Parts: sequence; C-alpha cells; structure tokens
Amino acid sequence: MTEPTDIDHDLAVTSRRRLLREGGALIGGAVVAAGLAGGEALAAAETDNLPPNVPEWMKAPGDPMGSQLYGTPSPFEKGVIKNIPKNLPQYLSASGRTPLQDLDGIITPNGLFYERHHGGVPTIDPAQHRLMLHGLVDKPLIFTMDDLRRFPSESHIYFLECSGNPVYKKPYGKTASDLVGLLSCAEWTGVSLKLVLQEAGLQPGAKWVIAEGADAAALTRSIPIEKCLDDAMLVYSQNGERLRPQQGYPLRLLLPGFEGNMNIKWLRRLRVAAEPTYSREETSKYTDLMPDGTAREFTFYMEAKSIITRPSGGQKLSAPGFHEISGIAWSGHGTIKRVDVSVDDGKSWQEAQLQDPVLTRALTRFRLPWHWNGESAVIQSRATDETGYVQPTLPELLAVRGDNYFYHNNAIWPWRIAATGEVTNAYA
Amino acid sequence: MTEPTDIDHDLAVTSRRRLLREGGALIGGAVVAAGLAGGEALAAAETDNLPPNVPEWMKAPGDPMGSQLYGTPSPFEKGVIKNIPKNLPQYLSASGRTPLQDLDGIITPNGLFYERHHGGVPTIDPAQHRLMLHGLVDKPLIFTMDDLRRFPSESHIYFLECSGNPVYKKPYGKTASDLVGLLSCAEWTGVSLKLVLQEAGLQPGAKWVIAEGADAAALTRSIPIEKCLDDAMLVYSQNGERLRPQQGYPLRLLLPGFEGNMNIKWLRRLRVAAEPTYSREETSKYTDLMPDGTAREFTFYMEAKSIITRPSGGQKLSAPGFHEISGIAWSGHGTIKRVDVSVDDGKSWQEAQLQDPVLTRALTRFRLPWHWNGESAVIQSRATDETGYVQPTLPELLAVRGDNYFYHNNAIWPWRIAATGEVTNAYA
Repeated sequence: MTEPTDIDHDLAVTSRRRLLREGGALIGGAVVAAGLAGGEALAAAETDNLPPNVPEWMKAPGDPMGSQLYGTPSPFEKGVIKNIPKNLPQYLSASGRTPLQDLDGIITPNGLFYERHHGGVPTIDPAQHRLMLHGLVDKPLIFTMDDLRRFPSESHIYFLECSGNPVYKKPYGKTASDLVGLLSCAEWTGVSLKLVLQEAGLQPGAKWVIAEGADAAALTRSIPIEKCLDDAMLVYSQNGERLRPQQGYPLRLLLPGFEGNMNIKWLRRLRVAAEPTYSREETSKYTDLMPDGTAREFTFYMEAKSIITRPSGGQKLSAPGFHEISGIAWSGHGTIKRVDVSVDDGKSWQEAQLQDPVLTRALTRFRLPWHWNGESAVIQSRATDETGYVQPTLPELLAVRGDNYFYHNNAIWPWRIAATGEVTNAYA
Repeated sequence: MTEPTDIDHDLAVTSRRRLLREGGALIGGAVVAAGLAGGEALAAAETDNLPPNVPEWMKAPGDPMGSQLYGTPSPFEKGVIKNIPKNLPQYLSASGRTPLQDLDGIITPNGLFYERHHGGVPTIDPAQHRLMLHGLVDKPLIFTMDDLRRFPSESHIYFLECSGNPVYKKPYGKTASDLVGLLSCAEWTGVSLKLVLQEAGLQPGAKWVIAEGADAAALTRSIPIEKCLDDAMLVYSQNGERLRPQQGYPLRLLLPGFEGNMNIKWLRRLRVAAEPTYSREETSKYTDLMPDGTAREFTFYMEAKSIITRPSGGQKLSAPGFHEISGIAWSGHGTIKRVDVSVDDGKSWQEAQLQDPVLTRALTRFRLPWHWNGESAVIQSRATDETGYVQPTLPELLAVRGDNYFYHNNAIWPWRIAATGEVTNAYA
C-alpha cells in the first residue's frame, strides 16, 4: 500500500457514514444505533449471544445437505454467467466469454471458463475415445484414456486466451468481458507431451506435430516440435476435476502461452511431420495480412497484456474516496515482471502490487490503492513481462500492423470514469 | 523420476499390448492395425486429413454455444459428486465430502468442495447481509458487503479441513473420500481481518474475537487475537467467483491452517473480547477428553498430514507394471517440506516429488513413479512440514491420545493392494 494515511482516512469516512445511515434505516433502528454508539445495548444482548437483529434466515434451518450433489452458485449470482453474443454463427465461430469484471483472483471457475468452438461441442464417451500418434515416429501408437492416465502426470496453472481478443475496430464492447473475456486461467493436469512422443520415438526430420480435434470441424493446427518437447501437455483435468465438454473432454492439447485455438480440444490425433499442414485454421484464419501485403502466419505466442477489471466498463464508483484498482496481467513468454497503472490518462504511472505466487504463463492479479477525487479520470494498466517486453498502446500497435490486422491485439485499454462514477470504455 | 529405465520399459509394454489388442477389437479392425503396424494405410488416408475411423461425434455439429450459460461437467462424470452419508442428522452435523480419489492437482472445483453444516445452508441476500464488529473496539462498526468490497483485497490458495477427518475407530470407510474427504483447497479472495480490526481500533485487553455465523445454528467460535492480526481474512470469493451458499455466501471468516468449523460461514458478527466465549462448538464439540481426564480444548491447528489418492481404496490396478503413486499433503503450520512414500508396508521409504508451487497452508500434490510387480503390497505416505513435524502412525497417535479422543486424526493411512489389483483400506 502506498498511501496508508489516505486509505485509513477514506475508510473511516465511509464507515462512519455507514454507521449513521444504517442506524436509522436499514437494519431496524434505534436499538442498533444506540448499541453501536455507546456499546450498552449490545452488552445486554450479548448475554444470550445474539445481536439485537436476527435475520429471517437464522430463524429456521437452512437447506439440507444433499440438495446439491454437485454445487452451483447462489441464486443471487444468477447474472454472473458466460457472455455470449447474439446471432452467433454457431458452427463456424461460436464464442462465450468469461465475465472477468465479476471475478477475483486468478483462477477461473470451470463453469465460467471461456469457450470458442468451430463445430459445436461434441459429447464424447471417454471409453470410446482414442488418441492416435503416427507420422515420423518409430512406433505409431493408439492410446485409450486409461493408457494416458497411466503415464506420469503433472499439474500447472496456465492461462488460455483466444488470439482474436479483442478486435482492433469499433464496436469494441463495453465491459472487460466484451473486450478480453476470451481469456481464462485454470490448474491443468495431464501428461507431458514430450514423454508421449518419446514413447513413440521421433524420427529424423520430425519438425512439426499436426494436432486434430474430434469435433465436427476436425480442427487442425500445426505445432513446432520445439514446443512439443518443451512444456506442452496432454491434459485431462482442469481445476481438479475432469475437463468440461466445452474444454475438450476427455483430452486436450495444452500449449502454455500459445494462442487458444492451437490448444486442440477433444484431441484425437497427433501426426509428426516435416512440414506444417497449412490447415484452414492457420491460413484463412489465425493468420494476418500485413501492410506490405505479406501474410504474418504462425503467430503462436500471446504477448504481454493486462486489463483493469475493477473498476471497469459497466461498473460505477459509489462515491469519491478510496477505491482499489485491480486487474489481471499475463504473458505467453513467461512471468509478469511488473504492472504499472496510470490514473491520469497516461501522463504518469505507478507500479502496482503483484499478488503472489507469480507463475509463468498464468494470470497475475495486480492491485493499486487509489483515492478518487470525484472528478473525471482515465485509468489504464501496462504489463511488462520477464523478457522486458512492454505492453503497447493501441495507436502504437495499429501503426505497425495496419488496417487489415485482426489477431493478437494486446493493446493497453483505458477506462474512462465520469464525475458520476460511471465507468466506460475510453476508446468506444 | 527416479526409475526412468523401468518406466520406459513398462510404458512400452503397455503400449505394445494396447496396439495389438486395439487393432483386432476395439476400434474397428484391420485397417487401423495395418496402418499402425506398417504406416501405409494411414499414409493414404492422410491425404484428406482424416484417420480411417471417424467417430459418430465428428459427423454432425455438436451442442451449440449458449446451451450452458454456467457450465457443468460431462454426463460421463455424473458419478463424481459429493460423498454424502446416508441418514444424516441434518441440522446437527451434516457433512458432504470431496471425492478426493477422482481429483487431480490441488484446486478443488467449487461444485465438489466439502461441506459441513450445523443448521443447514441459509439463503442470504447479500444486499441485506451485515457484518457487525463490536466489543473491545474504539469504534463499533456495521459493514455492508459493498463496504467490505471497498477495502483493499488479497487472494491466497489455502486448504480447509474439518477436524473430525477421519474418525479414530472402525468403521473407517473405504475410499480416500470416506477417510479424509472433509478436505478441500481453493483460491480465496477477501479482506485482511487485521485491516478491518484496525479500522475499528482495538482496545487494551483485546485477546479474542468471537465470530458468529448467520445460520440457524448461529455457529460461534472464539479466535485468538494473534491469528486475527496475522493471516486471517474475511473472504467473499472462492476460485474466482463469489462464495457458494454452502461455503458461507456472502461472507466467510478464513483462518488459514485452523480447523474448518472455526472458519465461520455466513459471518455476521465479530465481537472483540478479553476471554473466549466457550460456545457449544468449543466445549461439547471440538474439544477432546484426554486419558488423564482433562479436556484438550482450543485445538486450532491442523497438523501435517497426507494421503495417497491414486491408487486408493475402491480403485483397481489394471495390470502389473508402471503406476504413478499420487496424493496430497498439507499442514496448518505452513509449507510441506517433504513427503515420503513406502510401498513395502513401512519397511522402507522413498522421497516423492512435490509439484510446484508449494504454497503455505495449501494442498501440495506429491507423486512417485512405481513399478508394481503384481504381488500384494501395502502403500502409504508420510508428510513432513516446514517446522520439521512428521506425520505419525495411527498406533503412535492412539498411544498418546487414548480411547476417547475424537478430533485431529492426522495419522498415516495405508492402502492394501491385492494380487488382483484391488485397493482397500489396510486398517478396515
């Protein structure tokens, strides 16, 4: 905390205001007000170990155990759901975004993990599912899920992000979820791909692995062999439990830090090859037209990026005074080294606190205490990763990439706060 | 990995067996077998980028986006649910256990987090909920949830465990969940309790904080002020999203490393006091009768403990050869320093690998590669924490605690593996 005195003052003001207002109105009046003001009324009530006001939900037993064998959120959180655009081209480019502005920490709960499908979500019986490994290998192999579960396992917390997150052109959307909600983070468990490839034995000339999903799109991407022999995994579990169908149940390729669609879901085939396959999803899609007319292809890495999630678009500051600025930062190249935050439209920057543990290729939560003076302001965050790379501004990015670029927009994104406290997208 | 040669051999044997068996029976015969054996049949099929067998779920688009605005597991995982005993005394001691033997990694998904209720699960409107802070403070305060959300926040991954996990006497149960399923781990976000107490101002003589829940049991526990000024939190989020009702929505006290019931759910009141309150749940319950007739009370800390979850009771080893032994270890006193595993009924021990990051007062996943020779065996794990404390055996624990002890059983728990591969509780 960089401003302890200010924060203490702000909180004190907030709490005193609350104290006065509550006493008269919200929780039933004079007894509580007297108790809090003088402590006497409460001292009497303490003898039977109950404060004066007993809410309705304490007066009878609550829901019994067993009403939910697999739990769900409170009915009061029914608005915290995936953010799904209207009029989706369902079987070409369907996507559902994580409601980042409603979440804390770095773990995305499985029920709100972002989705991106090219042929819908298949329902796969794990007992029938197979992974075929062939091509430039000494010993082509087919694995059942039980076979893969017998390999040594590992677990890591990694983010996943779609490379079309967000677009470069208006309309950009209003909320953090609209902008970068094709982003989530989970603890993944599975097998090292390197171990599985070694089991088959790589032949000379093996430079790429062509991965194919068992969805109706047979989504196919080419992965450089260096990544496959580094930190790539075949994952079967996410946040402890088995993958959700939307995340590739029963088996997914996980390529930490690489663009989302390369992390092939419902993985059924790995073909080891000398050349990439130039599939639809690496030629007509997920490749970019540069200003000089050339194509920028195989843009694997998600570059360093960050966004403030609180306060963010669609939210409203209740009053001037203390507000914590909080957000997330990430880089496909490794750990986040620092995040700077500006509250004066980019004129000056302050270093934010990073929440431990700071993990490679995982979301990192950052926070900055802030005293809002009640005037309009523009706030934004800027990530720097372990390689020293600094997140660019949108004008900087557009100057290099031109008008036809679609993917890998990792620009700094500013939020405008009005004097009313309302927060909006500063570029919208 | 300590035995690479053995593992490689084991995996090779497994995969070769699979290769032969699959070709003839499971995925439709001669084409695949020929393809895998010689590589020729596959080379022809590769030209249209499809392997010979196309499963039914690739032949038509899958489920559309938006069918689940809040996701749920695959229907094929419908057996992975909370483990709830029959004939529960619902409003006294209801509990639902996490299916530890089905989970990987260290994060427990919110839908499977263990539960323990003393008066059922209240349904609380967060807009109506209040936290009262009073007693030996300069300035008694009432907080709304919005007030608490305005404080600086922090996030940490911590385990929670019930102190009655497991019992000391038969029947012990059959599975890892039956034994120690009152244990889970999540990323929690909330406010430092120290910060909130400082806001009210502690008066001289403040030695305890009496915490009360807004359930029908008004569950009440006394917390030493030292813990409240250390790492205690008021949490509102778990694994990114708001707390589930079963975990105290909208507000829970979190006391890292302390027994579960002290982490008061649906938190409505904190009274700062000079003495503990000697509530029902710290006198008639959660206190223990020692062999000399005295009571051991206020047994806050969950001592170092571990259990093998795979293979574990109820599972079956499919065949001799390579099997990874995997489990979880934890300590209320800090980080896990090492875990040793015995596969010969405790005669010898090998140090297991610990999965990074090893976090204080969080679950730590451990793994050991193992070659099972097909004979009956007894396997078990033993945790050592950063204080040097070593997890005891059950006979060691019983010798000290006598016949009437009920809580804080952190004994080593062995699993027996029969020559058939079936795994059972070695003490049952």
